[in-house]
Amino acid sequence: MKVCVLLSGGMDSVTALHHAAREHEVVSALSFDYGSKHNASEIPCAAWQAAAMGVPHTVIALPFMNEHFASDLLQSGGDIPDGHYAEENMKRTVVPFRNGILLSIAAGFAESRTAEALMIAAHSGDHAIYPDCREPFMLAMAEAIRSGTYAGIQVLRPFIHTDKAGIAQRGAALGVDFSRTWSCYKGGAIHCGTCGTCVERREAFLLAGLTDPTIYLATPPLPAAPPC
Amino acid sequence: MKVCVLLSGGMDSVTALHHAAREHEVVSALSFDYGSKHNASEIPCAAWQAAAMGVPHTVIALPFMNEHFASDLLQSGGDIPDGHYAEENMKRTVVPFRNGILLSIAAGFAESRTAEALMIAAHSGDHAIYPDCREPFMLAMAEAIRSGTYAGIQVLRPFIHTDKAGIAQRGAALGVDFSRTWSCYKGGAIHCGTCGTCVERREAFLLAGLTDPTIYLATPPLPAAPPC
Repeated sequence: MKVCVLLSGGMDSVTALHHAAREHEVVSALSFDYGSKHNASEIPCAAWQAAAMGVPHTVIALPFMNEHFASDLLQSGGDIPDGHYAEENMKRTVVPFRNGILLSIAAGFAESRTAEALMIAAHSGDHAIYPDCREPFMLAMAEAIRSGTYAGIQVLRPFIHTDKAGIAQRGAALGVDFSRTWSCYKGGAIHCGTCGTCVERREAFLLAGLTDPTIYLATPPLPAAPPC
Repeated sequence: MKVCVLLSGGMDSVTALHHAAREHEVVSALSFDYGSKHNASEIPCAAWQAAAMGVPHTVIALPFMNEHFASDLLQSGGDIPDGHYAEENMKRTVVPFRNGILLSIAAGFAESRTAEALMIAAHSGDHAIYPDCREPFMLAMAEAIRSGTYAGIQVLRPFIHTDKAGIAQRGAALGVDFSRTWSCYKGGAIHCGTCGTCVERREAFLLAGLTDPTIYLATPPLPAAPPC
């Protein structure tokens, strides 16, 4: 199947790109520069990974998000909170309907390139604090994309029953160079080690029993996840 | 209810803006400059109408569509076909998943402005040649927006059981100045009178029994709609 992979440059989407290249014909990898604090750190990783795989890579700029949307993830927002991803304070990093917007644009892009499917690295540990990561949203959005395109474009989520540690293991098995992936929401040159995404990244390598190749600014003991 | 109205500057969405102002608190009117041939003609109409109503108006630029998407509606595409909207050749003017993209961005924008609903001027005559105008798409997209936002944002379609002539009548009753609305897909300074949207506009005023205030470049006899 001809697929278009949403490629942020994080460890999940890069693993998805490798997975897709094994299973499908990857016609394009698609990244979005929506004005987050970490876009400038993650997009070069996405570009490097796509080039290493020989996959055409397109970056779509969405400056309206930083200009008009309210979120601490954006350059126009406040500081990124430290702590566990599942904590209440991480809600400040929600970019309203981001997954809906990125999937919609990817659907139009994919239809223009005669692709038959999109692949997104949604996984079982995706966060209930983000309404547009929850299953009811994903199912409805997939149906909107299927019914709203001539090609009946499918949304593929190969890791939906896998957690982030499982993705790390799958990526390692596929030969992913995780040192060329980016997670930290604060951006910059080095992962901070303390924000929600860094905590999650560190946990994933630990639980997967893999050596974490990431250079962190600080590696204090990992905080416990809050009770569900 | 606090609503955000999608305002292209055409006769349907301008009527929706007037309708919304009667029924709701309009927190914003939202237009998109996505690189179509007629954006430069319709967006000034949208701006004029919003200003006349005292509604904040935002124009969001989406240059990636013209750059990456395949459609004759876009500046990067071929000529706009003449004839009836329902004809097969109008498929060339489909912008892949345009409604999905515009509704998604509007959803994120609305959530950032603490709106509770979007209003779109979808109507009963919307065209089956456009997959993202059909009911299965609209229902799934509305559910994705409801479930994918904290506010459970609703998609309002007040004209879904009204045809374009009915919208013209409703607009006339609301005092809409239709001379300050734009339909023609070819853009420019004057409506062509012969493209699919001009034919539809001329039909609507005729069927509504209203004087059409539009200046057309040509007004040949209206073509019959093709059989369903």
